[in-house]
Amino acid sequence: MTETRPTLAVLGGTGKEGTGLGLRWARAGYSVIIGSRSAERAVEAAAAMNAQLGLNTVRGLGNAEAATAGDIVVLTVPPEAQLPTLEGVRAELQGKVLVDATARVDARNPKPPEGQASARLAQDLLGPGVRVVGAFQNVPAHALKQLDHELASDVLVTADDAEARAAVVVLAEATGMRAYEAGGLDNGLVVEGLTALIIAMNKRYKSKTGGIRISGISQAKEVIGN
Amino acid sequence: MTETRPTLAVLGGTGKEGTGLGLRWARAGYSVIIGSRSAERAVEAAAAMNAQLGLNTVRGLGNAEAATAGDIVVLTVPPEAQLPTLEGVRAELQGKVLVDATARVDARNPKPPEGQASARLAQDLLGPGVRVVGAFQNVPAHALKQLDHELASDVLVTADDAEARAAVVVLAEATGMRAYEAGGLDNGLVVEGLTALIIAMNKRYKSKTGGIRISGISQAKEVIGN
Repeated sequence: MTETRPTLAVLGGTGKEGTGLGLRWARAGYSVIIGSRSAERAVEAAAAMNAQLGLNTVRGLGNAEAATAGDIVVLTVPPEAQLPTLEGVRAELQGKVLVDATARVDARNPKPPEGQASARLAQDLLGPGVRVVGAFQNVPAHALKQLDHELASDVLVTADDAEARAAVVVLAEATGMRAYEAGGLDNGLVVEGLTALIIAMNKRYKSKTGGIRISGISQAKEVIGN
Repeated sequence: MTETRPTLAVLGGTGKEGTGLGLRWARAGYSVIIGSRSAERAVEAAAAMNAQLGLNTVRGLGNAEAATAGDIVVLTVPPEAQLPTLEGVRAELQGKVLVDATARVDARNPKPPEGQASARLAQDLLGPGVRVVGAFQNVPAHALKQLDHELASDVLVTADDAEARAAVVVLAEATGMRAYEAGGLDNGLVVEGLTALIIAMNKRYKSKTGGIRISGISQAKEVIGN
């Protein structure tokens, strides 16, 4: 080991998006913990991922145990489960980075979410002891799971804590995507809302692979410091 | 003439963005009218544009006269001037398409706008007799004015009226940009908000040319019908 890598816990990790991210992080050499409301389902999902990758670095645990074991915790649950799930792991998350991938957009009636960014709601619930980061709200889950699929969508990472934001850019790039620091937590509202536009464009142009990319800016890894 | 092209009136057309759009449309063969609060300044700006392009197809008028003369009217004024300007041309716009480029983001304190999309506020003010379209909120004005500059930013066009939306995609492509229909008028709130993220990324990565592009979707012109 030439560097110390954080252990990553993915809560809601048995879903499409969590599985896709977990597979890509495990393949990139991270220790990954799949968290689920059902520890049994998490163990099964982890075993399937290890089998697919020919590894034994993915573990399955209940959400609370996963949150305890992870250095960085990633939340990939449906919007209605976001705050209840976080409520249940509030204590376990203190002192850690939480990455919130929640996008409150209904695919059947896509429109921009109102009020505050999901990640801001998470921050308010968890308190100042947790550094919340918004990311991965627009990533096409089906493409994530296809490991040989090049992801043509960039990740916009928003957080009030610059160190946490930079750490999540590194994680996003480990999945094979380009990632950019895109300002504070409140900007996550726009990233969520982009999901509504991508759904509208996919429908209009009969596509399933719409995404957004950033142009005119050097990639994150080429820039040192702030 | 192999086709009938709409006459384009650009209200606030003496500003950077309006001048850039007007220059590019005139170069593409459109009749362009520059509107301004001051007819005199509009005439001067139009003369300068004609001189730059070697044309005589750009005219300058006061905003109300410009709105009367244009088939499609484009609004490029600072956010605080949006609704007052529209109030002054409400009667002239009836029966026409209004393209609203307003993005209510303060460059010194960039954050996502709250409430409704600017274009929705315009629609509410103008009433159902005007078809409002949101577009060009993120276009870098300095790049627009450099006619030899390839614009690496896509235009997201939002409107509740499908015909008006498609017409503005054609206009956007005439400037040299790629353009996409991105759903209804309310989605414009997200397009406005992207301005805050682009400002944050430009600051973070020491750039002046940040923009967004759509990936994974065939370009508008390759798709027929809806």
